[in-house]
Amino acid sequence: MEFLVDVEITWPPDGDPAKRQRLVEEEGRRARELAEAGHLVRIWRVPGRWANVGLWWAADATELHTALTSLPLHPWMDVTVRPLAQHPSDPGTGP
Amino acid sequence: MEFLVDVEITWPPDGDPAKRQRLVEEEGRRARELAEAGHLVRIWRVPGRWANVGLWWAADATELHTALTSLPLHPWMDVTVRPLAQHPSDPGTGP
Amino acid sequence: MEFLVDVEITWPPDGDPAKRQRLVEEEGRRARELAEAGHLVRIWRVPGRWANVGLWWAADATELHTALTSLPLHPWMDVTVRPLAQHPSDPGTGP
Amino acid sequence: MEFLVDVEITWPPDGDPAKRQRLVEEEGRRARELAEAGHLVRIWRVPGRWANVGLWWAADATELHTALTSLPLHPWMDVTVRPLAQHPSDPGTGP
Amino acid sequence: MEFLVDVEITWPPDGDPAKRQRLVEEEGRRARELAEAGHLVRIWRVPGRWANVGLWWAADATELHTALTSLPLHPWMDVTVRPLAQHPSDPGTGP
Amino acid sequence: MEFLVDVEITWPPDGDPAKRQRLVEEEGRRARELAEAGHLVRIWRVPGRWANVGLWWAADATELHTALTSLPLHPWMDVTVRPLAQHPSDPGTGP
Amino acid sequence: MEFLVDVEITWPPDGDPAKRQRLVEEEGRRARELAEAGHLVRIWRVPGRWANVGLWWAADATELHTALTSLPLHPWMDVTVRPLAQHPSDPGTGP
Amino acid sequence: MEFLVDVEITWPPDGDPAKRQRLVEEEGRRARELAEAGHLVRIWRVPGRWANVGLWWAADATELHTALTSLPLHPWMDVTVRPLAQHPSDPGTGP
Amino acid sequence: MEFLVDVEITWPPDGDPAKRQRLVEEEGRRARELAEAGHLVRIWRVPGRWANVGLWWAADATELHTALTSLPLHPWMDVTVRPLAQHPSDPGTGP
Amino acid sequence: MEFLVDVEITWPPDGDPAKRQRLVEEEGRRARELAEAGHLVRIWRVPGRWANVGLWWAADATELHTALTSLPLHPWMDVTVRPLAQHPSDPGTGP
Repeated sequence: MEFLVDVEITWPPDGDPAKRQRLVEEEGRRARELAEAGHLVRIWRVPGRWANVGLWWAADATELHTALTSLPLHPWMDVTVRPLAQHPSDPGTGP
Repeated sequence: MEFLVDVEITWPPDGDPAKRQRLVEEEGRRARELAEAGHLVRIWRVPGRWANVGLWWAADATELHTALTSLPLHPWMDVTVRPLAQHPSDPGTGP
Repeated sequence: MEFLVDVEITWPPDGDPAKRQRLVEEEGRRARELAEAGHLVRIWRVPGRWANVGLWWAADATELHTALTSLPLHPWMDVTVRPLAQHPSDPGTGP
Repeated sequence: MEFLVDVEITWPPDGDPAKRQRLVEEEGRRARELAEAGHLVRIWRVPGRWANVGLWWAADATELHTALTSLPLHPWMDVTVRPLAQHPSDPGTGP
Repeated sequence: MEFLVDVEITWPPDGDPAKRQRLVEEEGRRARELAEAGHLVRIWRVPGRWANVGLWWAADATELHTALTSLPLHPWMDVTVRPLAQHPSDPGTGP
Repeated sequence: MEFLVDVEITWPPDGDPAKRQRLVEEEGRRARELAEAGHLVRIWRVPGRWANVGLWWAADATELHTALTSLPLHPWMDVTVRPLAQHPSDPGTGP
Repeated sequence: MEFLVDVEITWPPDGDPAKRQRLVEEEGRRARELAEAGHLVRIWRVPGRWANVGLWWAADATELHTALTSLPLHPWMDVTVRPLAQHPSDPGTGP
Repeated sequence: MEFLVDVEITWPPDGDPAKRQRLVEEEGRRARELAEAGHLVRIWRVPGRWANVGLWWAADATELHTALTSLPLHPWMDVTVRPLAQHPSDPGTGP
Repeated sequence: MEFLVDVEITWPPDGDPAKRQRLVEEEGRRARELAEAGHLVRIWRVPGRWANVGLWWAADATELHTALTSLPLHPWMDVTVRPLAQHPSDPGTGP
Repeated sequence: MEFLVDVEITWPPDGDPAKRQRLVEEEGRRARELAEAGHLVRIWRVPGRWANVGLWWAADATELHTALTSLPLHPWMDVTVRPLAQHPSDPGTGP
């Protein structure tokens, strides 16, 4: 089942730059793992913000929760999940 | 450039069923054309509603406007467009 | 997978009372069928409103969409779906 | 009387992990007590967030307040309570 | 248990004045009955609007729903119910 | 003139418990004085929150402001005031 | 006591122009009477809208309600009232 | 003084197409006149909607109101006006 | 040109009382200067809050911005400005 | 393609004035560079706030994101981007 997930990062402006850099790199590695596992299907930046919108796949909301909370930046995330149903006009079965 | 587009259909509950059926069929045909033209990339139903969220591609907002207003149900649509920027962790170049 | 579903009915105050009565009865019958099929798990009235909040079960959002749109009053409904994930402190596996 | 209760936890991202761990364990124990006392009927995680939605039972809003404020994480909670009325199509008297 | 109830009347500006007058009178009679039955405790007009906020008493949300939907103007009402818990500084047991 | 006043307390979760305890006691004393002076007519807890909704009486908004800002917890309060007008169906002249 | 009152007119675009013209003239006459009675102190147009914001004076919310509902366009109005308290830096006792 | 003006057109989906066509043409002519008079400086379509956002110039809000209400489609418009102040980094004195 | 300006002060509850007292006094002095200069026409307290709503006059939004940012408490202010247009029923040319 | 960008600066009231001064100067320099590069077309202050609204040009949302995040104050910015489509009544091709 696919989900549309909005993520806002609420990192403090005066946060430690080194910690931020390390977390961003770990985030990238974890995102690649989740993509290889088929959970993270597509992801886009929201222009102008430290935020993204992503297309995710999971068996259900419980598996999606496990995937999202495994991200190193999750404690700084404000996450909104929307469930998606199939549409008869969808051009592609996969993304 | 990709856009995330939310569409709500505001068809009146007591609207003419035959007209609705005809418009839905025309909408499906036009959606296929827009998919073949590369504009409609993915589309999902919002569960429980006559609404959808779609991933669209257009050169810019003007071309996207032309595509969206070519849909037969457009006069009954409430449309919200969000511009999408590339994310370094995006698994796929195409959807 | 469980979903929390909010439903508002937007029946016009001057709507045909006989049609309303017939639709409410059909709605009750269809709700019983959906309960027997395991889709409608619990349902409550929102006090003071023609509205309800329900606990639903479906394999995914597509199956839930099919169940919700099979309700006779669906054309008059404003539906909001929230996906639910398992919580380690949940007292009951089934409701 | 049943209530639908939304809870958001506003734990600071840089909060003490040991304190968090201890509070989560105490929260789990208190939740079990409230479940055994018949107050906490069902609880689900909101996917992607440190948040939950729960089905609670209490004689009235005063007893519910006592139950909710007895949770160890309550000082970090943003709580929204919705009263629930019986619906004639409710499949189960108990959850 | 006490409830705080906000009511907005959505009567159309070009509605039948005679029907409106008749409904307002019936509403007044029913309100008196609900006051005598102990359900309607206090009621105020929201200045400038056809709207009111009321303090209601009912055993639970189900009984409150029955009281509110017994009002002749209920089909034209937008009702919001807030449950109230006892406060240790409340000056009066009754209103 | 009566007013409906919503109050949210925004006390930090890690605030000094002794200071909180002292302020709550002073708040209770001041609330009793305001009740005896006829300003605080009724007050209820919002279930699950450190918040209340109150029925207040004051000659005008200026006198109400003086009463509300005299509360020891006022610096931590988010206050919303709604003016109330008399309703012909109000059961009681006093609360 | 002074009040700040926002008024939106919801006249239908295809409403009868003659009726509209007549109501606007009656509204102007009634506004002058309310100004002479000291109720309407100042009034401004919200640019681009059929809407206004006004500074009103009334003994209390009940008198204000009587003044506002005496306006011929009141059935088409969406009215929001904010109570105003005296400010020590206010340059003028009257407007 | 410059203003940023958001305009939504609320034309009914089943409105008369001939009337719509005529109004759109008159709107275009009036827009050109307002541009020549220096009031309409820039205007963009909101993609996917019958809506626009425009940069307007007027001596004050009163003159802007006169300009906006002179548009033939104004009765179908929902208009929001934001006042703009000069910014020291603005690249151009005129647009 | 007149403007309606809403101001909320976001002073921290545990802020330095001496600094607060000093700022409030400087604010009062600056408000008097702005009143004498004809910029601050009327100002009211929002009851129960550290907030005010004011009627301001300035040649345009740029001059208004200069006046508002000259207030000593401005760094703690959340300011919302609404432009006002003349209304034919306005009782007074000046306030 | 043009974009309308709202920016709010969330600088803490007790932030270091020297750091603020330095950032504002760097911001001005970077804004001039972005204007010379054709990205920043127009910019206005939102009166009363440390906020601006700007007209930006970029090939797509990705290029816009790069431009916006290059601003020295970006870590303190809350940015909202709206895509703009061409309007047939637009008076100017360039701003």
